[in-house]
Amino acid sequence: MQSAEPSRAFDVVALCVQAQAASRQLAQLSEAQKNQILSDMATALIEATPAILAANALDMAAAREKDLAPAMQDRLLLTAERLQQLAAAVRQIAALPDPVGQIRQLAPRPNGIQVGRMRIPLGVIAMIYEARPNVTADAGALCLKSGNAVILRGGREALHSSLAIAAVLQQVLGKHQINPAAIAVLPDPDRAILLELLQQKAYVDLVIPRGGEGLIHFVSDNSRIPVIQHYKGICHLFVDKAADPDKALALLLNGKTQRPGVCNALETLLVHQDIAAAFLPLAGAALAEKGVQVFACPRSLGYFNAAQAAGPSQYDTEYLALALSVRVVDSFADATAHIEQHSSGHTEVICTQDISRAQRFLKQINSAVVMVNASSRFSDGGELGLGAEIGISTSKLHAYGPMGLESLTTEKYIVIGDGQVRQ
Amino acid sequence: MQSAEPSRAFDVVALCVQAQAASRQLAQLSEAQKNQILSDMATALIEATPAILAANALDMAAAREKDLAPAMQDRLLLTAERLQQLAAAVRQIAALPDPVGQIRQLAPRPNGIQVGRMRIPLGVIAMIYEARPNVTADAGALCLKSGNAVILRGGREALHSSLAIAAVLQQVLGKHQINPAAIAVLPDPDRAILLELLQQKAYVDLVIPRGGEGLIHFVSDNSRIPVIQHYKGICHLFVDKAADPDKALALLLNGKTQRPGVCNALETLLVHQDIAAAFLPLAGAALAEKGVQVFACPRSLGYFNAAQAAGPSQYDTEYLALALSVRVVDSFADATAHIEQHSSGHTEVICTQDISRAQRFLKQINSAVVMVNASSRFSDGGELGLGAEIGISTSKLHAYGPMGLESLTTEKYIVIGDGQVRQ
Repeated sequence: MQSAEPSRAFDVVALCVQAQAASRQLAQLSEAQKNQILSDMATALIEATPAILAANALDMAAAREKDLAPAMQDRLLLTAERLQQLAAAVRQIAALPDPVGQIRQLAPRPNGIQVGRMRIPLGVIAMIYEARPNVTADAGALCLKSGNAVILRGGREALHSSLAIAAVLQQVLGKHQINPAAIAVLPDPDRAILLELLQQKAYVDLVIPRGGEGLIHFVSDNSRIPVIQHYKGICHLFVDKAADPDKALALLLNGKTQRPGVCNALETLLVHQDIAAAFLPLAGAALAEKGVQVFACPRSLGYFNAAQAAGPSQYDTEYLALALSVRVVDSFADATAHIEQHSSGHTEVICTQDISRAQRFLKQINSAVVMVNASSRFSDGGELGLGAEIGISTSKLHAYGPMGLESLTTEKYIVIGDGQVRQ
Repeated sequence: MQSAEPSRAFDVVALCVQAQAASRQLAQLSEAQKNQILSDMATALIEATPAILAANALDMAAAREKDLAPAMQDRLLLTAERLQQLAAAVRQIAALPDPVGQIRQLAPRPNGIQVGRMRIPLGVIAMIYEARPNVTADAGALCLKSGNAVILRGGREALHSSLAIAAVLQQVLGKHQINPAAIAVLPDPDRAILLELLQQKAYVDLVIPRGGEGLIHFVSDNSRIPVIQHYKGICHLFVDKAADPDKALALLLNGKTQRPGVCNALETLLVHQDIAAAFLPLAGAALAEKGVQVFACPRSLGYFNAAQAAGPSQYDTEYLALALSVRVVDSFADATAHIEQHSSGHTEVICTQDISRAQRFLKQINSAVVMVNASSRFSDGGELGLGAEIGISTSKLHAYGPMGLESLTTEKYIVIGDGQVRQ
């Protein structure tokens, strides 16, 4: 990838033009054609194991030299087994139903024209992500299955790995007479190049940033293209007065401790005052056993052995760690008001045996995922049945919550007449 | 509306906070409650005819003084009869089905949790429009029916009329114990205030500009909130070799001449070479009779008496007048390639009796509305069966094409379990 030119000479617009041309080709493929390409890609990824691991070794050597955090190094590392998993994920995407071409609501109007909606790809997606080489294959496959071209801009640390994976996918595209720009990689991680990409609204239809809040803010502050925004997940569990304490305890422990570092982990426990005296001692013992640090309101503080008093910003904190905010509320209305004020719009859970209160919670709370008697940890594309997830949106436009293939499409109107004109 | 304070002292953020509070109230109303409010609004608009016409007289006097164009003055003018129409439109919106609360795809996952999608309002909509007082009632009613609060910012020339209409709607809201900020009007048309509104992404979920290209560019260049974009309508009619010439002629004349000044009027006629000799003489005579100025490609020029040769930018021109670009194409593929290159993504029509070519056109062309044997003039919300239209989107994100009530909503996930946790 060496060049005599300085990196800024990379032609972003030319890449976008190619990606748009490729997107028009992809939009016309049948589901069977796309599935065949994806299956061939899975096979090719495994066959290319030595080349991909060699490229990954370059990234890993640089990562060790730069002394990257062990967790980052682990995300960066590819192995033969991980490549098998990557290929399996591509095959799973091939097996998902294709949303493109689906028609709904086709019905006649009084003048006899038939009007319906047909699902179509968005066109060109730009994925901006951090140093995770697996996203290159994953996002490439999801975009292909939904008929979109994708421009991938991963983290600098994974560039060799990403380019090696993309090269394999592009070879398969070429064999199927598809423009390889259908899965394009920005070969230069320079921020100036990213900024230029984010201006290309004539060619790129959607930007999906995946990563930390800093990356998402940078992208959405600088993009002239619509951006899917996914900020923090401050997820609430409300233990209603009509809760089954055993279920509530299970949801609390699973939500907080099964994987505390992810956005669908619980951050705040709200407890109805009528059940506080019964539930909080159980919660206190179980949380202590798991080593969860509790930040408690004055009314709940006494139930915990080593809790700290909740400070003013406590209920707006995403811990992503074994820590939890706790508050006793007077009523159902106080619980929903607390959630409306502090929620990040991600996932909220009620634990209750009362069907009326369950229905009221489902209707009233307008976060992206609203649950009754289920763990917040189910709030991801795979668990909710999307098959795969390309991102999560916590803003309501276009997509809200986990995004699967359908979120990479839109609907056009189709009209079939027999010569009708407007009077 | 006079004040001792300078206009810049108007508190945009306070208005947005109120609108957001109101939106949470609206999101919880039942369809019956919303319909009753809308019905009361229709009645109140008619009862308030004298007050509204008095306010409108102030706007009309200023318009005459400023010597506004007659067409603009006509759009500004309210009469008792027009207020009756306005009230009737509000009643029609009440009669539309409510998208909010609809649930789809509710189905169990292998672990027994049930997962579905529930339709919810977006929250707060900002409508930016020109001097059309009817939009104030129309947009207010559409947003209310879909459970959204709306902040209305109409043109300066219609401000007295808009405030008078909004005051009537707000009185009805008050009688139903709804925060009147559910239908808020920016009382100051200053651009600095508009700019401030466009920054309030913590409170406003969507901006819908309605008006000329200048307004839409200004709004989308300056907004930090997602904007529905509706640029030009360069609509194409492709007369295929398998077209019925009579139908083709009817679609051409209706599309071009029934109302040439609107975005769903035809701007370009493409004719397959195999039918050119049969069709173009008919088209030439009929267009001449209607006084349509033709800009023709070299191969079609000879068929028209007074045509001019098409210049380089002709096929990118939105005439909005009795003028038409004409081009003979070699093939179906040339027609679709021309459309891909020059289309604005609004509406394209094929005239053909061949079902395979019709299907191919429907699948291949990804404009917002794609038609077979029907007039492009049907491309609006009312004609397509949406009941009412709040805007048209020519970008694919969130909404594409005419936008009805459903476009003012999004979907959240709902999950109903019985204590399940993630393994």
